[in-house]
Amino acid sequence: MENKKLRTHIMYGADYNPEQWPTEIIERDMALMKEIGINAITLNVFGWGMIQPSEDRFDFSKLDQVFDLLERSSIGVVLATPTAAPPSWMFQKEPDMLKVNENGQRVAHWSRQAYCPNHPLYRKHIRNIARLLAERYGKRSNLMMWHINNECILHCYCDYCAAEFRAWLQNKYETLDHLNECWQLRQWSLTKTDWQQIMPPVGGMTHTSASLDYQRFMSDSNMQGFLAEKEEIVRVTPDIPITTNFYSIDFLGQIHPKWAPHLDVISWDSYPPHKDYAVWAAFQHDYFRSLKHAPFLLMEQASSNVNWKPYNPAKRPGMMSLQSYQAIARGAEAIMYFQFRQSRGGVEKYHSSLVSHGTESDNRIFREIGQLGHELEKMDNVLRSHIHARVAILFDITLMWLVEWNKTSRDIDYRSVVTAFYRPLYEANIPVDVIHPLADLSGYDVVIAPMLYMFEEGVPDNLRSFTERGGKLVTSYNSGMVNGCDVVEYGGFLRPIDDVFGIIVEETDVLEPDMSNRIEWKGGSHYRTDKWGEVVRLNGAEAIAVYLEDYYAGQPAVTRNRYGLGEAYYVSAHPEDRFIRELLLEICLKAGVAPLCPNAPKGVEITLREDEGKQFLFILNHNPVPLEMDMDWVWEMGIDWKDLIRQEPVGGRVALEAYGTLILEQEIQR
Amino acid sequence: MENKKLRTHIMYGADYNPEQWPTEIIERDMALMKEIGINAITLNVFGWGMIQPSEDRFDFSKLDQVFDLLERSSIGVVLATPTAAPPSWMFQKEPDMLKVNENGQRVAHWSRQAYCPNHPLYRKHIRNIARLLAERYGKRSNLMMWHINNECILHCYCDYCAAEFRAWLQNKYETLDHLNECWQLRQWSLTKTDWQQIMPPVGGMTHTSASLDYQRFMSDSNMQGFLAEKEEIVRVTPDIPITTNFYSIDFLGQIHPKWAPHLDVISWDSYPPHKDYAVWAAFQHDYFRSLKHAPFLLMEQASSNVNWKPYNPAKRPGMMSLQSYQAIARGAEAIMYFQFRQSRGGVEKYHSSLVSHGTESDNRIFREIGQLGHELEKMDNVLRSHIHARVAILFDITLMWLVEWNKTSRDIDYRSVVTAFYRPLYEANIPVDVIHPLADLSGYDVVIAPMLYMFEEGVPDNLRSFTERGGKLVTSYNSGMVNGCDVVEYGGFLRPIDDVFGIIVEETDVLEPDMSNRIEWKGGSHYRTDKWGEVVRLNGAEAIAVYLEDYYAGQPAVTRNRYGLGEAYYVSAHPEDRFIRELLLEICLKAGVAPLCPNAPKGVEITLREDEGKQFLFILNHNPVPLEMDMDWVWEMGIDWKDLIRQEPVGGRVALEAYGTLILEQEIQR
Amino acid sequence: MENKKLRTHIMYGADYNPEQWPTEIIERDMALMKEIGINAITLNVFGWGMIQPSEDRFDFSKLDQVFDLLERSSIGVVLATPTAAPPSWMFQKEPDMLKVNENGQRVAHWSRQAYCPNHPLYRKHIRNIARLLAERYGKRSNLMMWHINNECILHCYCDYCAAEFRAWLQNKYETLDHLNECWQLRQWSLTKTDWQQIMPPVGGMTHTSASLDYQRFMSDSNMQGFLAEKEEIVRVTPDIPITTNFYSIDFLGQIHPKWAPHLDVISWDSYPPHKDYAVWAAFQHDYFRSLKHAPFLLMEQASSNVNWKPYNPAKRPGMMSLQSYQAIARGAEAIMYFQFRQSRGGVEKYHSSLVSHGTESDNRIFREIGQLGHELEKMDNVLRSHIHARVAILFDITLMWLVEWNKTSRDIDYRSVVTAFYRPLYEANIPVDVIHPLADLSGYDVVIAPMLYMFEEGVPDNLRSFTERGGKLVTSYNSGMVNGCDVVEYGGFLRPIDDVFGIIVEETDVLEPDMSNRIEWKGGSHYRTDKWGEVVRLNGAEAIAVYLEDYYAGQPAVTRNRYGLGEAYYVSAHPEDRFIRELLLEICLKAGVAPLCPNAPKGVEITLREDEGKQFLFILNHNPVPLEMDMDWVWEMGIDWKDLIRQEPVGGRVALEAYGTLILEQEIQR
Repeated sequence: MENKKLRTHIMYGADYNPEQWPTEIIERDMALMKEIGINAITLNVFGWGMIQPSEDRFDFSKLDQVFDLLERSSIGVVLATPTAAPPSWMFQKEPDMLKVNENGQRVAHWSRQAYCPNHPLYRKHIRNIARLLAERYGKRSNLMMWHINNECILHCYCDYCAAEFRAWLQNKYETLDHLNECWQLRQWSLTKTDWQQIMPPVGGMTHTSASLDYQRFMSDSNMQGFLAEKEEIVRVTPDIPITTNFYSIDFLGQIHPKWAPHLDVISWDSYPPHKDYAVWAAFQHDYFRSLKHAPFLLMEQASSNVNWKPYNPAKRPGMMSLQSYQAIARGAEAIMYFQFRQSRGGVEKYHSSLVSHGTESDNRIFREIGQLGHELEKMDNVLRSHIHARVAILFDITLMWLVEWNKTSRDIDYRSVVTAFYRPLYEANIPVDVIHPLADLSGYDVVIAPMLYMFEEGVPDNLRSFTERGGKLVTSYNSGMVNGCDVVEYGGFLRPIDDVFGIIVEETDVLEPDMSNRIEWKGGSHYRTDKWGEVVRLNGAEAIAVYLEDYYAGQPAVTRNRYGLGEAYYVSAHPEDRFIRELLLEICLKAGVAPLCPNAPKGVEITLREDEGKQFLFILNHNPVPLEMDMDWVWEMGIDWKDLIRQEPVGGRVALEAYGTLILEQEIQR
Repeated sequence: MENKKLRTHIMYGADYNPEQWPTEIIERDMALMKEIGINAITLNVFGWGMIQPSEDRFDFSKLDQVFDLLERSSIGVVLATPTAAPPSWMFQKEPDMLKVNENGQRVAHWSRQAYCPNHPLYRKHIRNIARLLAERYGKRSNLMMWHINNECILHCYCDYCAAEFRAWLQNKYETLDHLNECWQLRQWSLTKTDWQQIMPPVGGMTHTSASLDYQRFMSDSNMQGFLAEKEEIVRVTPDIPITTNFYSIDFLGQIHPKWAPHLDVISWDSYPPHKDYAVWAAFQHDYFRSLKHAPFLLMEQASSNVNWKPYNPAKRPGMMSLQSYQAIARGAEAIMYFQFRQSRGGVEKYHSSLVSHGTESDNRIFREIGQLGHELEKMDNVLRSHIHARVAILFDITLMWLVEWNKTSRDIDYRSVVTAFYRPLYEANIPVDVIHPLADLSGYDVVIAPMLYMFEEGVPDNLRSFTERGGKLVTSYNSGMVNGCDVVEYGGFLRPIDDVFGIIVEETDVLEPDMSNRIEWKGGSHYRTDKWGEVVRLNGAEAIAVYLEDYYAGQPAVTRNRYGLGEAYYVSAHPEDRFIRELLLEICLKAGVAPLCPNAPKGVEITLREDEGKQFLFILNHNPVPLEMDMDWVWEMGIDWKDLIRQEPVGGRVALEAYGTLILEQEIQR
Repeated sequence: MENKKLRTHIMYGADYNPEQWPTEIIERDMALMKEIGINAITLNVFGWGMIQPSEDRFDFSKLDQVFDLLERSSIGVVLATPTAAPPSWMFQKEPDMLKVNENGQRVAHWSRQAYCPNHPLYRKHIRNIARLLAERYGKRSNLMMWHINNECILHCYCDYCAAEFRAWLQNKYETLDHLNECWQLRQWSLTKTDWQQIMPPVGGMTHTSASLDYQRFMSDSNMQGFLAEKEEIVRVTPDIPITTNFYSIDFLGQIHPKWAPHLDVISWDSYPPHKDYAVWAAFQHDYFRSLKHAPFLLMEQASSNVNWKPYNPAKRPGMMSLQSYQAIARGAEAIMYFQFRQSRGGVEKYHSSLVSHGTESDNRIFREIGQLGHELEKMDNVLRSHIHARVAILFDITLMWLVEWNKTSRDIDYRSVVTAFYRPLYEANIPVDVIHPLADLSGYDVVIAPMLYMFEEGVPDNLRSFTERGGKLVTSYNSGMVNGCDVVEYGGFLRPIDDVFGIIVEETDVLEPDMSNRIEWKGGSHYRTDKWGEVVRLNGAEAIAVYLEDYYAGQPAVTRNRYGLGEAYYVSAHPEDRFIRELLLEICLKAGVAPLCPNAPKGVEITLREDEGKQFLFILNHNPVPLEMDMDWVWEMGIDWKDLIRQEPVGGRVALEAYGTLILEQEIQR
C-alpha cells in the first residue's frame, strides 16, 4: 500500500447504518460522535436496499447527507460496499440466488448473507454497486478507506457452486487422473471419470480430501467476490486503501493468508469470551498482525455485551478500554465498534452499542468510550510502530476443519492444543508471531508447531531449513500426518522430515477419558498426560522425557534431536499445561529469548512496540483488582520512559488500576 | 353461550373411538361405562376414515349404532369433528395437502395432523364433514356439545401457507411500507418491495419479527379451520355449545386468548409431570379458567401413565382422583379421559386408558375411576360456581417463543420465571387469575407481570391505569423490552411506562453459570441472585433491595414507586425463590389479600368456589402421607360447613388421606 | 454346503485392495503375507472402479496379477463382488441411483454404499459383474470362497424403494383390508384404500407397524441384491462356498436369521469396545455361531485401534491375539483382518492394519500378528468341532429398533437387558447359544428370553411347548407386549401364554431416574431395582421374590410357575446384576447345567469345542496381569489333555500370561 493514503491518527469509530435512522436522530448522533472523539465511521455496510431500492432505481440522497455531515465534522469514512446483504428484489428476480445449506435446503431471505457467492446475478450487481460507490464518493476528502463486504464467510452448496467447484478443481488438478491420484479416489471406487461426477460434499458421509478442497473453494469463492469489487474500485480510486473485515478464527470460511496479499491493511472483528478473554484476543491480534507483519485495524468490537453467546455478561468497568489497549499493544491502529447506535429490531437488537436504546449516551459505557477516545487522541506517535518477535507459533486455519474431520478422539481439538502452546509464551510476555507454516521463518529463533496435522507442499522444507540454519523447532503429536490433500505419505507420519526429529512413531494410542499416563522429565519431575500417547522409537534423537505407565512405560515421551545447527523437539503426548510451560521457557532460554519483564505480576501483560526513533511499552493489568508494580526492569531498556497519556515521568513503582493500562514511551538514539 | 344447552352434571367420561373396535367390544364397553358413572363420551375424534371411506362414499352405520347405544344408556355425547385426521384418500388426491416441516420436508401420511391447515381441499372437506355431522346428529337428545378438531396446533411451511401468510400480512399491515417499518426491515437490506418476496421463515437464521407473525399466522390458520367448521355447525345446531380441546401450554400453536371468544366453553388436556404436578396443573387450570372467567372442562387426562414422556411412572393410588379434584377445585366442570379403551397399535398403545389391554376393568385403576365417578355424581351443586381472585398473574403464551428467540442467556426461560412468581401464591393458597396482559385488570388488587418481555399495543396503558387506580403492580427483569412487533421503542425498555416504575434501566448483565450476586432487603436479609442483573437508576422510585456484589454493588436491585393511588415494583435480578415468596406475600398483605387458610400444612392446597347461594371449600392433600388438620379457620368463613361427599358435619379436626381430598359446602345468606 | 469346497486350515488373512497400490508395493506385500502365515486374502471388496472403469470397458489385468501372485504363494482367495461400492460413472448415468436419506436428501457420491439397493440399474450391473467374476476366476485353484457385497446394511427412502415397499407389502398382506387390520390403521384414519397411498416412513412422526415392516423390507432389499449375485455365481461355480460379511449387531440393517439359510458359511466383522470387550464379543460369537449351529468366520477385525469410535485406544500387547483366540474358542474357523495395508486417504486412513503407514512391518503389532499366524498353523484339528450348549438366550435383532420406538423410559435399552442376562452365564463359563425366538428349542434345558417385547407368530407356541416338555423358561418385564405387527393382542401382555407363566400383569410403572424399589428373595436377601416395576397378580404361579417398597410393596416381583414338565419364571422388575446372576445360576443348577470349571478365577473365560474324536479346551485370561490356575477340574473331563500349541502335557497348575491363552486338546474314545 505504498501509494495509498496514510492514516494520521489511531482510528476511533464505529459502524453507522443510516438506513435505520430518521434525520433527527442522525443529527443527534453526529454531535455524540464528536463528544467522544470519534474520527472514523464505517458507513453503508448493509445499506444496499436504501441506495438501490429496485434494479433500475438508485437513491443516494441519505448517504450523501451523512457523508456531508461527517465531512463537516471532520470525521473520516470507511466506506463499505453493501454486498453482504443484497436486497430482496434481487432474490425475487432469481430465487436460486438464495444459498443452499448443507442439508440441501434453500434458505428464505430473512437475514444478511443469504446469497450464493457464485451466482452470476450477484457477481454482476456487486461490480456495479462497487463502481457506482467509487465514482460517487471517491473524491470525498474524508474517504479514508474501502471496506468490501462484511465478514465474508458464506457457505453454499447449490448447483452454481457445484459447477464452479468443478472448474476450480480442473484449474488446480488439470486432469481427472491427477485428482483421482491426489485424493486417492481409487479407494471405494470413487474414481471420477467425468468432471460432471463431482458434486459438493452433502448428504452425509463424505470424503475428507474433497471436503477440504470444498472449504478452500468456498474461501476462494468469497474472495472472487471481493476481488471483483476491488477491481472496480481500484480503477476509480487507486489511492484509497482497501480492506475487508475478517471474522475471528472461531468462524470458518476464509483462509486468511490467501486473502492477505489482496488487502491493503488487515482488519478483524473481535468478540472475546468473558473468561480468559486476554489470551483469546492476544493470539488473534498476533495472528492478524502477522499476516502482513504490519499494524492492523480492530474493525469491530462490542462496547459491552453481545447477544448471541450462550451467556452475555456486560464488560466490567475498564474492561472494554483494557481490551482496546490490548489490541493497540499488539499492533492495532484502529479501535472501532459495531455499532454506533443500537438497532431496534431483528436478531442483533441486544448487541451493545455506543448509543444505547434506553439511556442513549447517559451511562457509564458511553462515558468510558469517551474517555478512551480522548486518550487515544494522544497516541498518534504509536502509528506505524512494530512488534518484534523472535518466536513464532505456526497456525493453519484449515486445520480447524481438517483435524475435526479426522480426529480419532472426541476430545482432540486443534485450537485448544495451539492455545496450550501459545499460553505460556503469552503469560511470560514473550513476543510471538502467529504465522502460516509456509511463511518465512528466517527471522525466528524458536518455531513452535503444535499439532501441525497437515504438511502442505513446502512445509517440510521450510521446517527443515529453519532447523538446519540453527532454529529450535518444537512440534507435538498428531503432526505431519498427511500432505496437502489429507493423504498419508509413504513412510508415514512426519515424513519427509522424520530425520529432522530423529524418531520413528510406531503406534498412536488414543486414550479414553478415564485413561491417563505420566511422564518423567529430568530424572525426577512427573507430569500427568492424557488423551494421547505414542510408541516412539529413537532414530538419532535423545529422549528427554519418558512415559511411566502402560505398555510403553520407559519409552520416549518427549525427544530432542540435533539437526544442522539447530534442534528439533517432539512432544508425543498431551501433557498438563505445567509441562508445556516449563519445556517452552527452557527452550526459549536456550535460544536467548527472554521475557520482556522477568518478574511481572500474574495477569499483567506487557508488550513493546517500536518505531525508528521511539519505543512504546504497554503494561496491561487484566486483574479485577488494582496492584502496584516495581519498575526497575524498564531502566534496562532505557532511561527516558514517560507516561504517554499523562505525559509525566515514571517512578520506581507504579500503581495499576483494576483493568488499568499504563503506556510508557521513550525516544531512542540508534 | 347464553342460549346454549346447559350442563346439568359434572361431566365424567372419555374419548371413545369406535372405528378401533368390533361390535362385541363396543357392547361390553357400554356396560363398563355405566358401571363407573360415565355420563359423557367424546366421540369421533379420529373417525373420518370410518365415516367417509372415500371421497364420494359415506358410512355412518357404526357411529349411528354407538350413538344409539349411548342414548339408550343416557350417556351424553361430545361429538367431535374428525378433522385432525383426514383420511389417506384425501392426501392421495392432492399430495401437497401433506404438511411441510421446518426443514422443508413434506411428511408422509403415517400420523394424525399430517395436513396443511391452509390447503383448499382440506378446507372444503372439513366444512362438508362438519355440516353432514350436524345434520345427521344435531337432533339427538344426548348430543351435549361439539368438539371441533383436536389439539389444533399444526405448523406448516408449504407454498399454500406462504401465499396465505402474505395475505394475512397484507390484511394486518396494509402496505409494505408499513410492514417494513414495523419490522425494521431496512436493516440488513431486508426491505420488501413486493409481497411475493415474503417467504415463511425456513432454512436457518430468520428474522424475529417475521417469525413472531408467522406463529400468530399459524394460530390463525388453525383457527380459520375451526371457524369454518363452526360456521357450518352453528347454522344447523345453534343451541349446542361448541369447544375445541386446547393442549397444555407446553406445546405451542394456539394463541388461546384469540380463540377463546369463539368457544362457548373452554376445554383443555392435562398431562402433568410426575413430580411437581400440582403447581404445573394449578397454573394452567387458572389460565384456562381465566380465559372466559368461567368454568372450564378438563377434556383429557390419563387414568395413569402416558407413553411419550422420557419416563412414565404410574399415577400412585389416589393421585389421579386428587388431580381430578384439583381441576374442579380450580374451576373445572368436567373430568374426561383420553381414552376409554386402550389402543392396540400405533404410537399411543401404551397410553393408559380406563379399560386396559390386559385386565380390562379388573384392576385398581378402573376401581379408582369408578369410585371417583360415583363421588362426582354428588357434586352437581358445584356447577356454575366461581373462583374469585384479587391477584392476577399476566401470561402471554407468545412469549414462550419470543423470549426463546431473543434470549441472551441459555438459562433464561419464560415459563420458569412465571412459575417462580406463581408458586408462592399457589403455595399460600391465595386465589390467582392467570390472564393476558391486555385483559381487564379492574377487578384486581395486585397484578404480577413476570418477565413481560413484550408490551403489545395497549399493554402499557393497561398497566398504567391499573396502577393509577390504586393497584399494586410487580414486574421483573426482561420486561417491556419490545413492542408487539418485537422492536425496541425509542427510549428503551419499560417505555412508555418507565415513569410508572420511576426507574431507568442503564445496563443489563447476563451472568455466566458460575457467576452470582447477592441482594440485601430490609437492611439485613441477604438473598442469592444469579442469571441476570441490571444497573438501575432511580428516577422517583425507592430502592427496597440493593445489590451487594460486583460493579453495581450498592445500587438498586428491587424498587418501589408510588404512582397515582398505587405502587409499581420492579425486580431487576433473578433472585432465589425465598425472596420472591417474601416479597409477594408482603405486597399481598399490604393490598389486604390474605391466604384462604393462614397456616395450612405444607402440600395442602385449598380453594374456594362460590355460587350465588353456596360456597365450596376444596382441601387437597398432595402429600404421599395422611395428615390431620385443624379446622378452626373455616369457621371464620361460616359455620354451616359440611362434608359434601359424606354429607356429614365437619369437626374441629379432620383427617386427610394420602393424596386425599375433602370438600366442604355451605349455604350462604346474602 | 454339503457339496462345497471344505476348509483345511484355520483361515488367516485380511482384506486386500490392490486398486490402492502400485505393483512394487503389491510384490512387497506378498512377501510380508508369507512371513506371518497368511493363507487367505479377501480380494476385490471395493474394486469395481478398477475392473470396470466405464460401462463398456473392463480391465482385469491387475486383479489377474494379484490372483497369480497369491496362487504362486499358495494363498487362498476369498473373492468379493465389489457391489458395495458402485463406480461413479454408474451414478452419473442415473443420478437417482444415489440413495435418499431419512431426511429426504439425496446423497452425493463421496462414499461406499451410496446406492439405492432397489434401483434397476444397480440390480442389472451387480448381476453382470458377479457373473463376469465367476466366469473369470471360478476355476482358479486358490479360489476358496465368495464374499458378496460388504456389510450390506443400506437404508434408502427413494421413490424406487417406495414402489418396491408397496409390492413387498402386497406380497405379505395380500389385501389392503388385511394390512389395515394388521397395522390397526383405522386408528387416526390412516386406513389405506389404495396401495399408492403407502409411502416410506419419513418426515417425522410415523407409525411403528409401518416402520417395522420398512426395516424388514430394507433387510430384504439388501438380501435381494445378495441373492441376485448369488444366483449368477452359483450357476458358474456351484462348488465354491458363499458368504457375506455381517456387521456387528451394533449396526442395524440385516435380519440375520432370514439371511442365514442363503449363506454357506456365516461370517461377521468384530470391532469390540476397549472396555468390556470380552462379553461384547462372546455374545456375538455365540449369536453368529448359533445362526447355523456351525463354525463361523471372523471376517474382519482390527489389528489394533480403529478410527471411528469416540476414542480409539491401541489394543494392548496380547489383546488382539486373545480376542482372536476367543473367536475360535466360541466357534470361529477364520481370523481375518481389515485390512492388510493401511489406506493412505479417505475416512479410513487411521484404521489400523497389518502393514502400517510408517514402520510397515517393523513394529510390535506386526510381530504379534506373525506369532499368532504361526500358532494358528498348528490348529487344523480344531476345524469342524462344535460347541454344545444346553442353555439358550433368545435374541431378536428387530427388537433393537422396535423397543427403541416403543420405549416408555429413556433408559430402557433392549441390548443392555439382554446383556444383563447373558453376562452371568458368560462369567460362569456356561456354554450358551444365542438364538432367534422361533428357533428349535428342543435341545435346551434352560431358555432365557430377556425383554422379548414381540411375540411373533409361532413364538408363543414355541415357548409353551418348550416348557411343557420340561424346559425352564425365564423371561423379564416388557415381554410379550405385541404380536409380529407391533400390535397388542386382546388379553394383553404375555398373551397367549400368560397361563404358562401363571400370572396377570396389572400395571406397568416406569420409574424416573431418582426412583427405585427393592425386592426380597428367599425371605432375607434384598436387592435394588430401578427403571421398571409391575403390579403382578398370581394366577397359579408362586411369588419367589416380592417388592418391598411403594404402593406394590408385598406383591410379586419374580414368579415361578410349574407348567407341564417345566417351569416358567417371570422377572417383573429391573434388578441389579447380582440378583440376575444368583437367579440364573440357581435355575441352571436345578436343570443340571453346571459351569465348565466350578471355580475359575475372575476374568478367565473357558470354552469347550468338540469333534467326533477330540476335545479342545480354551482357557483365556482377560486380565491385564498374569495368573496361575489350578487344573484339577480338567481331569474330570478326561486325562489325556495336552497343550495344543506347545504339544506338551499339562501339569496340575498352569501359568497364564496377561491376556494369555491356553489351549488343551485330548482324543476321546466314544
